[in-house]
Amino acid sequence: MSVLVVGSIAFDTIETPNGRRDGAIGGSATYFAYAASHFTRVRCVSVVGEDFPVAAMDALRERGVDLEGVEVVRGGKTFRWSGRYLADMNTRETLDTQLNTFGSFKPKVPTGFRSTPFLFLANGGPDTQASVLDQVEKPAFVVADTMNLWIDIQRKELLDLLRRVDGIILNDEEARMLSGDRNLIAAGEKVLRMGPRVVLLKKGEHGCFLFSHFVKFALPAYPTPNVVDPTGAGDSFAGGFMGYLASTGNVTLGNMKRAMAYGTVTASINVEDFSVDALQRCERSEVERRYAEFIQFVTL
Amino acid sequence: MSVLVVGSIAFDTIETPNGRRDGAIGGSATYFAYAASHFTRVRCVSVVGEDFPVAAMDALRERGVDLEGVEVVRGGKTFRWSGRYLADMNTRETLDTQLNTFGSFKPKVPTGFRSTPFLFLANGGPDTQASVLDQVEKPAFVVADTMNLWIDIQRKELLDLLRRVDGIILNDEEARMLSGDRNLIAAGEKVLRMGPRVVLLKKGEHGCFLFSHFVKFALPAYPTPNVVDPTGAGDSFAGGFMGYLASTGNVTLGNMKRAMAYGTVTASINVEDFSVDALQRCERSEVERRYAEFIQFVTL
Repeated sequence: MSVLVVGSIAFDTIETPNGRRDGAIGGSATYFAYAASHFTRVRCVSVVGEDFPVAAMDALRERGVDLEGVEVVRGGKTFRWSGRYLADMNTRETLDTQLNTFGSFKPKVPTGFRSTPFLFLANGGPDTQASVLDQVEKPAFVVADTMNLWIDIQRKELLDLLRRVDGIILNDEEARMLSGDRNLIAAGEKVLRMGPRVVLLKKGEHGCFLFSHFVKFALPAYPTPNVVDPTGAGDSFAGGFMGYLASTGNVTLGNMKRAMAYGTVTASINVEDFSVDALQRCERSEVERRYAEFIQFVTL
Repeated sequence: MSVLVVGSIAFDTIETPNGRRDGAIGGSATYFAYAASHFTRVRCVSVVGEDFPVAAMDALRERGVDLEGVEVVRGGKTFRWSGRYLADMNTRETLDTQLNTFGSFKPKVPTGFRSTPFLFLANGGPDTQASVLDQVEKPAFVVADTMNLWIDIQRKELLDLLRRVDGIILNDEEARMLSGDRNLIAAGEKVLRMGPRVVLLKKGEHGCFLFSHFVKFALPAYPTPNVVDPTGAGDSFAGGFMGYLASTGNVTLGNMKRAMAYGTVTASINVEDFSVDALQRCERSEVERRYAEFIQFVTL
């Protein structure tokens, strides 16, 4: 089965202790699409400006990503983001944000995309995310991402959204902020009571939790000693998770655990180079090799 | 088989966001002994002053802890430590340290303890830890703990010790300090090359890693929403780990993984109350119930 992602496509300028990249391809939908493309066909709804290179579109298409839903705004400019990672590779400062065409993004889901069974609502305003749900036809499994900004300024809309999705994906700080609880186990359980069937709580280098009404589950991160650029780690985790689920068409909790392990693997590949470079050049065999290695790493 | 611990017995005064305890029973050997006593007979080498209550000694004996190696210094005072945990329960400030009799502790291993097959060298100067190794007869499995102070002021002695033990146990900051590497995977692998067969790297609420020349392994922490007092979490992890290994007499890597899960369980019990209260009142059936639950939590 295929998966639909609605989110940003961007140019990122990134400084890390390992180097710097100017105007590299980024954005939540991009990272998600590259990661998910290792497992299944991906459909993308996003927006770019006229400055976005045809080559970058073609590279996505080559990986089986259908870009029919990517609007190119005449005379518009693509979303630009610039940030810097500190020495610990976990702390990030935003240096500059130019929303450009993404600032007024009103996602329009093409008719041919409306019955896609798996849907990922990448980080965006919960009102915008809800507008996507209004356009699709009963997807089998919907997961939404969010961020501190929306928890702060659109809390009510976010709580409404949480009752309409199957899963929500957040990082540790977002879970603490949304729940008001510092302890991550208590925080995850509180977010679960807000409506979704599953809560995926990401902890960066410390792995991730799954909370459901039936089981709780934890995975560490993949043990990579080689973190070059953490940008897109969350979206490439989500891409591996949703891509694997969609490829199997199975949304049991047991399969979600395996999907989390695949998400962990795609995130680990992503952080080993700048931009989407590592995900783009990686083959499925490498994904499977890491998955097998990761299973050893977590099996008692 | 039995396990020998050499470390401190102390009075702790602890402030946490959940309350305060004055002069509670603490110390590395105490936490270790209570945790290990759920699995096997424990032998203890330590030192206290005349002010140490007989009742606290009797409570340890009731759990099968042999205190023949605990020296009571006439006219001396027991080690006292005082600390405060901040709201995140991970950051700790030391308010006061009075080493008292522990300041001049020269461990003397009683003759009857010298052939104990499992040995835990709790945090202490590596020269003092080495002096214990000089007194014992070829133990089957020796693990040492350490801390930032010794990495700083007795680095050479610590490196010498690492070539004489089977395992070293450190937390994330200690691993970074000892290796000079920020990335914990790289740090753990570097410490492994310093000599021990296994490196146990503790990450508090984020679980723990095992590094060996054959396998790497990771476990999350037990998912407790109820952290009352983290004091002794590391030593009660070590106690569960070594106690389980000693009880089975099996030091294969597969059994070490199970031992890490038992250590995770005893640490989780410990942090749910002040001092050793929770470990003391807990029964083996509760340890096994949590172990089974934890296995579910980490099994794909």
